[in-house]
Amino acid sequence: MRPLTAIPTRADIEATHEAIEPLIHRTPVLTCSAIDERAGASLFFKCENFQKVGAFKMRGASNAAVRLSEAERRKGLATHSSGNHAQAVALSAKMLGVPAYIVMPENAPAAKRAATEAYGAQITSCENTLAARESTLQKVVDRTGATFIHPYNDYNVIAGQATCAKELLEDVEGLDMLTAPVGGGGLMSGTVLSARYFAPGVKVYGAEPEAVDDAYRSLQSGQLQSNTTIDTIADGLRTNLGEKTFDILQRELDGIFLVSEAEILQAMRLIWERMKIIIEPSCAVPLAAILKHPEVFAGKRVGVILTGGNVDLDRLPF
Amino acid sequence: MRPLTAIPTRADIEATHEAIEPLIHRTPVLTCSAIDERAGASLFFKCENFQKVGAFKMRGASNAAVRLSEAERRKGLATHSSGNHAQAVALSAKMLGVPAYIVMPENAPAAKRAATEAYGAQITSCENTLAARESTLQKVVDRTGATFIHPYNDYNVIAGQATCAKELLEDVEGLDMLTAPVGGGGLMSGTVLSARYFAPGVKVYGAEPEAVDDAYRSLQSGQLQSNTTIDTIADGLRTNLGEKTFDILQRELDGIFLVSEAEILQAMRLIWERMKIIIEPSCAVPLAAILKHPEVFAGKRVGVILTGGNVDLDRLPF
Repeated sequence: MRPLTAIPTRADIEATHEAIEPLIHRTPVLTCSAIDERAGASLFFKCENFQKVGAFKMRGASNAAVRLSEAERRKGLATHSSGNHAQAVALSAKMLGVPAYIVMPENAPAAKRAATEAYGAQITSCENTLAARESTLQKVVDRTGATFIHPYNDYNVIAGQATCAKELLEDVEGLDMLTAPVGGGGLMSGTVLSARYFAPGVKVYGAEPEAVDDAYRSLQSGQLQSNTTIDTIADGLRTNLGEKTFDILQRELDGIFLVSEAEILQAMRLIWERMKIIIEPSCAVPLAAILKHPEVFAGKRVGVILTGGNVDLDRLPF
Repeated sequence: MRPLTAIPTRADIEATHEAIEPLIHRTPVLTCSAIDERAGASLFFKCENFQKVGAFKMRGASNAAVRLSEAERRKGLATHSSGNHAQAVALSAKMLGVPAYIVMPENAPAAKRAATEAYGAQITSCENTLAARESTLQKVVDRTGATFIHPYNDYNVIAGQATCAKELLEDVEGLDMLTAPVGGGGLMSGTVLSARYFAPGVKVYGAEPEAVDDAYRSLQSGQLQSNTTIDTIADGLRTNLGEKTFDILQRELDGIFLVSEAEILQAMRLIWERMKIIIEPSCAVPLAAILKHPEVFAGKRVGVILTGGNVDLDRLPF
């Protein structure tokens, strides 16, 4: 098995799933009659908040890691991130017994830094600009020979994230639709590929905060757009699509729904209160879209990917 | 099947489980490697926060309800409570198609009142004293002929709560110990009875906040004691043991551990952060005891009952 250099095929995703199975949890699918009643639909929540490192990111990072050769792997894994992807790369490296080098902005929350260090990663601090992050990472890679794992614009990462929808489609029969949030588009691309390969009749919709609607505008205009603000509570969705993820979504996605900050918060609270599980604000975006658009979702069996559960309990929005 | 008038037997608990199965969820058992590492033990969390009405109370209330005759049942169910037991009685009545009469203190949180009303219960307000609650309830019972369902000092309720440990013992092999929090003692009594009947070698320990240590002092002294304060974050555990629950615990329980408020909060936070599930403060008391007493729990396979997940998101302790 070697790194993927083109859009993952059905066989690529199947091989990926087999390869990463020892490194990930097969997360449960939960239902909630109170939320179904509110939505007028049957919702099946794929709980990646219970995934290792608390987010689906473990799937993509571990796939990128296992596809490296022994020699490449021994030099280590590298990335720049202050979020779930950093922890996913760090834990993948730890499980494979190789070094991880993580570039983090100086202002990253102490808790996230500590969690990443707890997985044994070596952390290099830099200024909080994209330029500083990229140049610092380049120096680390030059010095160590480690392999950079991009958080989403990478076919290995996309194939890894695709295993989440694959499991959901295996565990729930007769789904009409799948929904997921759109940030950089890695999860969304993997989701739509798995639906096309493993359940061709299933419609796939993305959901995005109005405040960071780059994917919506990119699909509307046919040109890759970027966000001008990052002013959303859904902090996992502030990134822009990459060229690879845009390409896949442009071909395959059935649509993207936009939701307001108030709608996100309301959906997040509904999940916390009725399902008794902890999800990140980003996770609530698809449910917000489902509640906003009964004309699309009512009466349907809908798979909803809950992407992660890493929230700062000292800064809850309630 | 008729109401139980003596300590539930093994056959009583088996019959109870069969009778209430259509009215309750069989809740999942979760594990968490990060918490196991911290505790040095293998912990199996029985998630009653995912139970109907968000708490184990549904088991006991529904058993008390189904054991009534048709004629008794038609006159309705009654109780005084502002908490999970009120909702459990209300939902049991709704599922059986009979009326529920709930006496609530005027200062009960609006959200709890609304939740109970949403199950179709008729609510009567009274002053927030035990005397007012009892006299108001008596008037309601006199007027309607409804049956009062005590929240814990009732053999039907105890047999219902016993089904929780019964399920946990069925679903996890080779447990060494069971732990649960002690409030009025209904859950604890049911837990110890199920352990004695279905897994005789398993030790059973209670856990209680230092601030409301009536059960600890009752067992030490051999006399039913009461709390002089209710000054604990574990609001589900402020009640005193009743005579029936004290009698069972005195015969059967292997011990009670006391924990401080800081230890409760720390254990609660650990479960929220690492397991990504929402639990009430009362649920965290057994884990706090396990972390405090490695000399008892380290190296053991321990079942931990997480009692409920109804917290007010506007008043979180973080």
